[in-house]
Amino acid sequence: MSRPKPLSGFPEFLPGGRVVEQRVLASLADTFELHGFGSIETRAVEPMAQLASKGEIDKEIYVVRRLQAEREGRVDRDELGLHFDLTVPFARYVLENSGHLTFPFRRYQLQKVWRGERPQEGRYREFLQADIDVVGSESLAAHHDVEVALVILQALERLHTEFGVPPVLMRVNNRKLAEGFYRGLGIDDHLAVLQRVDKLDKIGADAVHALLTSELGLSHEVASACLDLATISAADESFVERVRALGVRNDLLDEGLAELADVVRAAAAAVPGRLVADLKIARGLDYYTGTVYETELAGFEHLGSICSGGRYDSLASDGRTSYPGVGLSIGVTRILVPLVGKGSLTATRSVPSCVLVAVDTEETRGEALLTAARLRARGIPTEVAPKADRFGKQIRYADRRGIPFVWFSTGEVKDIRSGEQVAADADTWMPPADDLRAQVARG
Amino acid sequence: MSRPKPLSGFPEFLPGGRVVEQRVLASLADTFELHGFGSIETRAVEPMAQLASKGEIDKEIYVVRRLQAEREGRVDRDELGLHFDLTVPFARYVLENSGHLTFPFRRYQLQKVWRGERPQEGRYREFLQADIDVVGSESLAAHHDVEVALVILQALERLHTEFGVPPVLMRVNNRKLAEGFYRGLGIDDHLAVLQRVDKLDKIGADAVHALLTSELGLSHEVASACLDLATISAADESFVERVRALGVRNDLLDEGLAELADVVRAAAAAVPGRLVADLKIARGLDYYTGTVYETELAGFEHLGSICSGGRYDSLASDGRTSYPGVGLSIGVTRILVPLVGKGSLTATRSVPSCVLVAVDTEETRGEALLTAARLRARGIPTEVAPKADRFGKQIRYADRRGIPFVWFSTGEVKDIRSGEQVAADADTWMPPADDLRAQVARG
Repeated sequence: MSRPKPLSGFPEFLPGGRVVEQRVLASLADTFELHGFGSIETRAVEPMAQLASKGEIDKEIYVVRRLQAEREGRVDRDELGLHFDLTVPFARYVLENSGHLTFPFRRYQLQKVWRGERPQEGRYREFLQADIDVVGSESLAAHHDVEVALVILQALERLHTEFGVPPVLMRVNNRKLAEGFYRGLGIDDHLAVLQRVDKLDKIGADAVHALLTSELGLSHEVASACLDLATISAADESFVERVRALGVRNDLLDEGLAELADVVRAAAAAVPGRLVADLKIARGLDYYTGTVYETELAGFEHLGSICSGGRYDSLASDGRTSYPGVGLSIGVTRILVPLVGKGSLTATRSVPSCVLVAVDTEETRGEALLTAARLRARGIPTEVAPKADRFGKQIRYADRRGIPFVWFSTGEVKDIRSGEQVAADADTWMPPADDLRAQVARG
Repeated sequence: MSRPKPLSGFPEFLPGGRVVEQRVLASLADTFELHGFGSIETRAVEPMAQLASKGEIDKEIYVVRRLQAEREGRVDRDELGLHFDLTVPFARYVLENSGHLTFPFRRYQLQKVWRGERPQEGRYREFLQADIDVVGSESLAAHHDVEVALVILQALERLHTEFGVPPVLMRVNNRKLAEGFYRGLGIDDHLAVLQRVDKLDKIGADAVHALLTSELGLSHEVASACLDLATISAADESFVERVRALGVRNDLLDEGLAELADVVRAAAAAVPGRLVADLKIARGLDYYTGTVYETELAGFEHLGSICSGGRYDSLASDGRTSYPGVGLSIGVTRILVPLVGKGSLTATRSVPSCVLVAVDTEETRGEALLTAARLRARGIPTEVAPKADRFGKQIRYADRRGIPFVWFSTGEVKDIRSGEQVAADADTWMPPADDLRAQVARG
């Protein structure tokens, strides 16, 4: 076979990039577990009927068929497709296993998803997502809307402070707020308004105003009020007064304002500067019914949202019980592929090995193996030189991989970066903590 | 939607089973990294041309197509399929990235694979594999055949001692040994013999003997010698003398004997009782060219091999350079689904949380959140009660999830298993080490 070419939209990391990804995933999982979110994994496929039931997204689904069944002209009764997000499979998992779960059920899920979209920067055909959700049985308190935002912001803040991932800005809105405001203005079809206001960033305020008056027949004044609402944004609770100043009164509006104020207040205290109320955020028109979130990565705004989600009154329902939920999804691949590709995030080395045990002759390889076993017994990743070359070559072998230490049969260990060589005992010697494992390199 | 049913062949764990799987995967990854194997992940799909080139396995491939392209009657130029193992994608990764890798290249890979086979116990349509391989450029020393067996045996032994997974028995053979022996007997078509000897366990010695004489025209004596070789098995190097006693002389035989003796000797020293030379092991007739491995789980022999692999002189080749390799693949799902399903492996709890902070009233939820943050800051997984119920209900909430401790605003913490309640400081209190995280339960 000649050298294969990468498949567009299916990014893969070299070993160093994978070290970065491993550390990022471990950090995310740790933050989630510290907050009581447990891991689940769902299968990669769902019945097509399930995947296609969510509207327009069916254009991007990958169908999965057994080659053999296809050749024989047989169609499997339940045709399958690759999941395009982790929310649909999670909803199915909750319904399927509801008798074995305890509610509110808190889970995180780190898995790949697939979409047959045209690949471009920040958009892939296979990509890794990190989702958290809290799901209740019949009801779910509003404080979970605050909680999931804080957990995600703390997770992303750790990526920033520990690894140098750029800081984020999460923009939050509340569907009840917008719907209540529109209703307070006497508008019945609030989704029609939301749909047009959602185009604000793309086409500008004047064009949206024109759409609202011409297409929906709103008065100049009402259309302006809708736009006034959409342009409100604040890092603190001051947005509440600015909405009130627009003079609209409605119970649903009050509920939305209170819920959004709770999120903003808690975030300002826990992770200052990372969250704003932004009243133009819509997150499409699908299943969200309350709080909605989207998130920009500083300096990478052109990638679009790297973390989105919201509240849904009914994530799933089996006809008898409905399961409301709130959750967020981090686009891990969307963050890491550009940062690793640009060299902004690199690993201290591309192999786990901290020590290379040199081999004097092939006849004494057994002694090197014993030394390596003693080091590993104390948690030091160690490999043995593949060949009893002259020591210069063995040191170069370590150097090419970034292995910091070479151990000699004389009972000496050399730091090949400084050249310092000292006597050492394989049962007691420890490398500096930073050298023990491959890490994300710091600036 | 009504309650969905599981898809046959696509197992999923409840949260407790997933805890077991997480701990097993972390243990495997740790062993691999301690031995200098680095992690990579490859995409889930490969071009069909690549997947179908390995012979009969194409019957089990899942084809992957964009629904939209299919509807429009367009056929993607490069049709894709889900990978059915991790070896084919790894070979492609090595070729694609050879200029960026250093050889011998050591990697492990923990990923799901898909095969459209009929599901049954131990055989799934989606399952998780844990592979290690060492790949050289142009050449790869025979001591790596010893190394990969030892790394895998140590990894499986840790699963046994740490989690109670049953012990294993790895059976090892060497293709050179068999080929050299047959050639020494004057047989040209050694693969034809191997193919028939491979049926020994299924059809018995007499039937194999009949096939060798009738189909291949071997003399009674030569056929008997082939069977004599196949029935040799030993946990130490004594197999070498028993082969010699059959009186066949051949250089390739000698090479195979020496390589197999090296594996057996090293394993007997490092993990006694877990490996035998078994001269009937063939591992099919595909790409293996030297050492071959397969592994039984004690008490679960009916599952088939839970860990297999071997040496291939050319895992990959781009026409100019060939890449010989040796590796093994653990069937993680094949081991865990039966053990978790039977209740042999369970988690100490199904959630990460070690502490539930009780909430007195919804107005004082903020204080509970601050207490939780102090505990998390010291690495203690903590959640806050979802509702300011009476304490009995909050304790039952913890109990149903297996959360061992409930923290009260009085500054007291209760071990809900013993009922013991003591004064504690959220900045200094630590749970017993065994309670900190959800673990695999022992005995």
